[in-house]
Amino acid sequence: MKYFDDINIGDRLALGSHTFTAEEIKAFATLYDPQSFHVDAVAAAASHFGALCASGWHTIAIWMRLRIRYAQRDDAERAARGEPNATLGPSPGFRDLKWVKPVYAGDTITYVSEVVEKRLSQSRPEWGLIHVRNTGTNQNGDPVLAFTGTGFVERRA
Amino acid sequence: MKYFDDINIGDRLALGSHTFTAEEIKAFATLYDPQSFHVDAVAAAASHFGALCASGWHTIAIWMRLRIRYAQRDDAERAARGEPNATLGPSPGFRDLKWVKPVYAGDTITYVSEVVEKRLSQSRPEWGLIHVRNTGTNQNGDPVLAFTGTGFVERRA
Repeated sequence: MKYFDDINIGDRLALGSHTFTAEEIKAFATLYDPQSFHVDAVAAAASHFGALCASGWHTIAIWMRLRIRYAQRDDAERAARGEPNATLGPSPGFRDLKWVKPVYAGDTITYVSEVVEKRLSQSRPEWGLIHVRNTGTNQNGDPVLAFTGTGFVERRA
Repeated sequence: MKYFDDINIGDRLALGSHTFTAEEIKAFATLYDPQSFHVDAVAAAASHFGALCASGWHTIAIWMRLRIRYAQRDDAERAARGEPNATLGPSPGFRDLKWVKPVYAGDTITYVSEVVEKRLSQSRPEWGLIHVRNTGTNQNGDPVLAFTGTGFVERRA
């Protein structure tokens, strides 16, 4: 990825889209979030959601997958141009996660990341800290998910 | 689960423990967080983590599983006593998630939830809102994970 020094507030990454099928909604939820409205379409129809919908954690896990795939494509392209890649360090965490609307079976969610803050790390001078606002929007243009993540990114030597 | 009216600040749920195997760390990460230090022990040894460790989202997904299983056991016990169960509503989100230390293959994490705040819902008078502080601690007593989640809980009629 870009070095910390080359990342700017306002940088915007179109991470891509994902369609949530009933099968994968149930597969994720059976393992990690076995509430009836995530694993059983009939029970979901009778619930406050009204239809089968994805675990909120599933909607973030797909964000993570798309974010890493984006980084891997980006790194490969940079390497093909003979440019060095910065190392993406660990993430200290996230804040202000909101699940705004349910993600129903068949919904297609489009994910975008935007850099909202950057600062040098006090404790690790070879790293900077990037704050990124992440959003997911469904096929009707409705926001379904938003959160702010933080990650360490390597600085130029 | 308990009705909103019967939940008190300071209520503490011991959700149980989970040992993260290398196989499941790689299986989760292959699908949702394919960074080399989550899917490849050799690459992980050469990374800043020093050994294979779980995706942070995996460590939360296991918290979710244990939370739901706890609720299902609790509901079954209450039903067996002939007592009514309140409905757990949707979660609007969470805040202040911190991954404090890596979770390595073989680590056993013990999860606890503690109620830190409760208030009536302005928009939905039949529900209350509960704020819960969730933590995960490894076998050495080191905190690895903490976040504050929010959920709607049904009020007594």
